[in-house]
Amino acid sequence: MAFNSKINTILGSKDYLEFLRGKDATFMLSLSTTKTLEIKGITQAGVPGLIHLTPTLDSEFVCCGEVRSLENLAETPKGVPTPALITRAVHVLKPFKNIELLDLGMSQKPQLDFFKLHEFSLRPSESIHAGAQINAMEIFQKGVEFGKTYECKDDYIILGESVPSGTTTAYATTIALGYACDGKFSSSFKDVPDSIKNQTIQQALDTINDGDDLFEKVGKVADNMLVFNAGFVLGNSSTNTKLILAGGTQMAAVLLLANAIVNYMGGEFNSHNLALCTTKWLYEDENSDIKALLELLDFPIHAYSANFNFEKSEHPALTLYDKGEAKEGVGAGGALCYGLINGLNDEQIVKEVENFLG
Amino acid sequence: MAFNSKINTILGSKDYLEFLRGKDATFMLSLSTTKTLEIKGITQAGVPGLIHLTPTLDSEFVCCGEVRSLENLAETPKGVPTPALITRAVHVLKPFKNIELLDLGMSQKPQLDFFKLHEFSLRPSESIHAGAQINAMEIFQKGVEFGKTYECKDDYIILGESVPSGTTTAYATTIALGYACDGKFSSSFKDVPDSIKNQTIQQALDTINDGDDLFEKVGKVADNMLVFNAGFVLGNSSTNTKLILAGGTQMAAVLLLANAIVNYMGGEFNSHNLALCTTKWLYEDENSDIKALLELLDFPIHAYSANFNFEKSEHPALTLYDKGEAKEGVGAGGALCYGLINGLNDEQIVKEVENFLG
Repeated sequence: MAFNSKINTILGSKDYLEFLRGKDATFMLSLSTTKTLEIKGITQAGVPGLIHLTPTLDSEFVCCGEVRSLENLAETPKGVPTPALITRAVHVLKPFKNIELLDLGMSQKPQLDFFKLHEFSLRPSESIHAGAQINAMEIFQKGVEFGKTYECKDDYIILGESVPSGTTTAYATTIALGYACDGKFSSSFKDVPDSIKNQTIQQALDTINDGDDLFEKVGKVADNMLVFNAGFVLGNSSTNTKLILAGGTQMAAVLLLANAIVNYMGGEFNSHNLALCTTKWLYEDENSDIKALLELLDFPIHAYSANFNFEKSEHPALTLYDKGEAKEGVGAGGALCYGLINGLNDEQIVKEVENFLG
Repeated sequence: MAFNSKINTILGSKDYLEFLRGKDATFMLSLSTTKTLEIKGITQAGVPGLIHLTPTLDSEFVCCGEVRSLENLAETPKGVPTPALITRAVHVLKPFKNIELLDLGMSQKPQLDFFKLHEFSLRPSESIHAGAQINAMEIFQKGVEFGKTYECKDDYIILGESVPSGTTTAYATTIALGYACDGKFSSSFKDVPDSIKNQTIQQALDTINDGDDLFEKVGKVADNMLVFNAGFVLGNSSTNTKLILAGGTQMAAVLLLANAIVNYMGGEFNSHNLALCTTKWLYEDENSDIKALLELLDFPIHAYSANFNFEKSEHPALTLYDKGEAKEGVGAGGALCYGLINGLNDEQIVKEVENFLG
């Protein structure tokens, strides 16, 4: 049959998402700062000099529609606003039933009443260029414990993230784990070795010693979000709660890390209730390959991209999304999929995002 | 007050449906094949030669928006697509919270992951022209048990059906039970005795012996859906769950059978939580009389029709609905009432159905 589908199935069965149509979602946001973001030119995700605040501002905007810890909404230097706008637009039009926040080492807590902020006594991790100094085993175990014991009030969980410079740490982690991932992340490590991002990754990899075990390696090159969520994914698999990772290559790295840990520990993992949802921009990105990354996993995974873009918008900041400037983040892909399986259409979402920009 | 109501109250109080406005629904689809469908010319509900697959295809399309057990969507020879299109359109625009399927003797199971398929070890029933060979007491008891023990996850249940040639078996059953129903079904038994449908009904009635009790009679002329759902209705009445039968004369026959069984067994039946929802096409059909059928019941019933048609569509396949070619089925009337009490309007539904047809 030939009609336009709102959702593209990247891997697995479309039934997973069809089954969730109409059901209530808890939207969770993993918030973490890695000092890797302080490397000049490594990330565009925020206001220069204040990028460490991006997770704080993103969480404020998703929850309440305004940034409180800074005057203006986080924008990249070229003027692309945070994907939090998209997540917020969906939440306004077809609200998540709950939003909960995971403080995985923020530099500053969000100024929010009522919203649950789960705390795990984590601080921002160090820059990976000299070793992130993460106690990976401990943070992984905290994630497992949270995944096992968290009682979802709704039918399923959508888990997004806001971690500036997180694609760099994700890429470094995936290489450190030994995956053949060159060309599958948003910049090619081999072809552009002198870029700031790749220099940083090389420096990070150089901190690894021959005798380091999996957790020691990861503790040097990852960020808290990757490690905690790998545990979350594995802990959650012992429950009946469906979990959607909302994101692109960073969430793929969470899965690859979980996969490596399962192999390392010799356990078994049932991924039946697990999926990944991302944006069309990320899925169609010519410089990365989310599908190929997910195909490196030893377990099957359902993966989808939302067929949404801003071609119906004339707002210059939004057309930059379509030009590939900001591809994913703050759970935008998962939020879009959620909205599109719950009766929303493109026009409504575009209009709502435009409304934020004035 | 003079404004166009989206819902027409056929019988009972409009408050039943108003009370359900905004509440979450479980949509259930009863799926059954009777070999009566093999009689040439008896039904238009499907692809000639493959009509036994219609329940399978309808359930696939409602759940996932595509037919998997056949290349093309079931259409009648005149080009009227299955009413599953309407049910699916409502589900896309204002999703049911859960869809669950009842296998009441399908020729082939649907190809669906995640969706719950309740199984009752039932096989397709035989053609009624030579006796359906249904163990009516056993199937009725399975229905009662299911109705008593099923725990609805939502606020109420909408129960639809897909049973090709089911109006023939429904008509035969209602006559066999002794109801004065001539002219109340979609063809008049008295006036057109030589039609294929009426010939079949006469042959079915001829298989009944003078000494047959109620269940023996029903076992010869009914289909599994009628018998199971009569039990379901009675079993459910001992719970607090509201149940909407979504359909026309077939669902009326379910109620008439339940009514006859209550009278036969000498029990009591509280119909307070029970309603029937159908389409405008069925309600306004000149060749049948749903209201008169429901007035044969000894218990009160709430009944509604959705004020929806395709007059805003220019698609030729859809204007055939308005000409009375396909009047009801696959829970279309119940789905429309659900959509209309939950904020949808005609235009949205028409547009979504047109989208399926390309």
